[in-house]
Amino acid sequence: MKNRPLILVTNDDGMFAPGIKNLIQVAKDLGDIVVVAPDSPQSAKGHAVTMSLPLRLNKVEAFGPEIEAYECSGTPVDCVKLAKHVLLKERSIDLCLSGINHGSNASVNIIYSGTMSAAMEASIEGIPSIGFSLLDYSFEADFSASVHYARIITKFVLEHGISNCNLLNVNIPRLPLGDIKGIKVCRQAEGRWIEEFTEGLDPRSQKYYWLTGNFVVDDNGEDTDIHALENGYVSVVPSWHDLTRYPAIESNKGLESFSE
Amino acid sequence: MKNRPLILVTNDDGMFAPGIKNLIQVAKDLGDIVVVAPDSPQSAKGHAVTMSLPLRLNKVEAFGPEIEAYECSGTPVDCVKLAKHVLLKERSIDLCLSGINHGSNASVNIIYSGTMSAAMEASIEGIPSIGFSLLDYSFEADFSASVHYARIITKFVLEHGISNCNLLNVNIPRLPLGDIKGIKVCRQAEGRWIEEFTEGLDPRSQKYYWLTGNFVVDDNGEDTDIHALENGYVSVVPSWHDLTRYPAIESNKGLESFSE
Repeated sequence: MKNRPLILVTNDDGMFAPGIKNLIQVAKDLGDIVVVAPDSPQSAKGHAVTMSLPLRLNKVEAFGPEIEAYECSGTPVDCVKLAKHVLLKERSIDLCLSGINHGSNASVNIIYSGTMSAAMEASIEGIPSIGFSLLDYSFEADFSASVHYARIITKFVLEHGISNCNLLNVNIPRLPLGDIKGIKVCRQAEGRWIEEFTEGLDPRSQKYYWLTGNFVVDDNGEDTDIHALENGYVSVVPSWHDLTRYPAIESNKGLESFSE
Repeated sequence: MKNRPLILVTNDDGMFAPGIKNLIQVAKDLGDIVVVAPDSPQSAKGHAVTMSLPLRLNKVEAFGPEIEAYECSGTPVDCVKLAKHVLLKERSIDLCLSGINHGSNASVNIIYSGTMSAAMEASIEGIPSIGFSLLDYSFEADFSASVHYARIITKFVLEHGISNCNLLNVNIPRLPLGDIKGIKVCRQAEGRWIEEFTEGLDPRSQKYYWLTGNFVVDDNGEDTDIHALENGYVSVVPSWHDLTRYPAIESNKGLESFSE
């Protein structure tokens, strides 16, 4: 690695979110930073990509004159694609940092998350990548513990790389720094949203449905991200983009010889 | 299972896509069908969810008077959530079928795909679920081989269920029925998009970037979906929503004791 690694910073909450400002504080003396972030909030955009519209990329001075930053009209994944293939195509990105998200991306939330999808897109491109999320949705959230642990994890990855994959899903509990017990490297807990929809009538008396819901954990394991977070640890789940359910290949082979 | 299973049909191309009409042909004598599909094309929407806007759900007669069908203003995942938690909340959905998509969702394309995200959302809810994709983007695509194999696979799942997971990613090669050699149950190939962006100036002389690109397969395995498709087989990848990279948990444990 070069003396000054090139670090791509992105998020899904946009340039004005406190989370990305804090992430830049984490990384700015660890390498040369380029920020490419959405020009509007893009939470829960999953791995969406913009194909049917042109994209815009505008240089901005959002984090002071020293930080090279661009806002992009697309999704978090679009930001990473444009960074890799347009803005930085002549350079080699050493690390991608995404976040710090306002709200948990533990358990199955990795699937819905724009923060994690941006990080995953970079990892598919072969770039070591870390997504950070704080379990606090508030604009006034206290990021001091997040900054502390994001810095430790970022330095670890710059020094040692990530072995056996390119992606870490990091979640930080909503606790004061002194109350956090440390870091657990763990697996994704099984969980899901029990959805409810608020039904109402719009000003033209047309019916609408608005998503709400509660998250439930269907997993008693002590080796999960949810268990780590509930016990005061920062959770780190090594993750990837292979969705194959391997044990099910052999057990569904009967399909190959099935006929009506 | 009841005598007439309840089958939810959805897609990401919208109600007017030939693929969904063909999928209804596959399923209509196998159970009671309810269609909930987006009111506009939603390709490449990944696992996006609509949280900041209300959603609309309108009954339509898109497939004749016998087929109960609704169009939804949201993403493919929104369609499944509304079907499960509003429309069919008093009933038990036995199977979800998504597609037939116009274009491949093999390899890493499962991540970007609205078709597969809808199917995955149903699988997270515990509903056995199958996403179908034909390797032909054309509106005039020949769906006869797809219909034949979709019917075999759907009947297999209705009779035997899916063991060890709830989700199948099915891709059908662009071949006449007689040239297809059969079905292979296999793993997701490693692949990625080599992205390019077309740059241009809009009518106001502002620069834009428009996504294009080529898909490359980084995988020589003979047990992959891409290998099956290239050799004239229908590929079936048992899939799930756990993105943990298990071998990397142990190999990155050093992070737990790392300090600056």
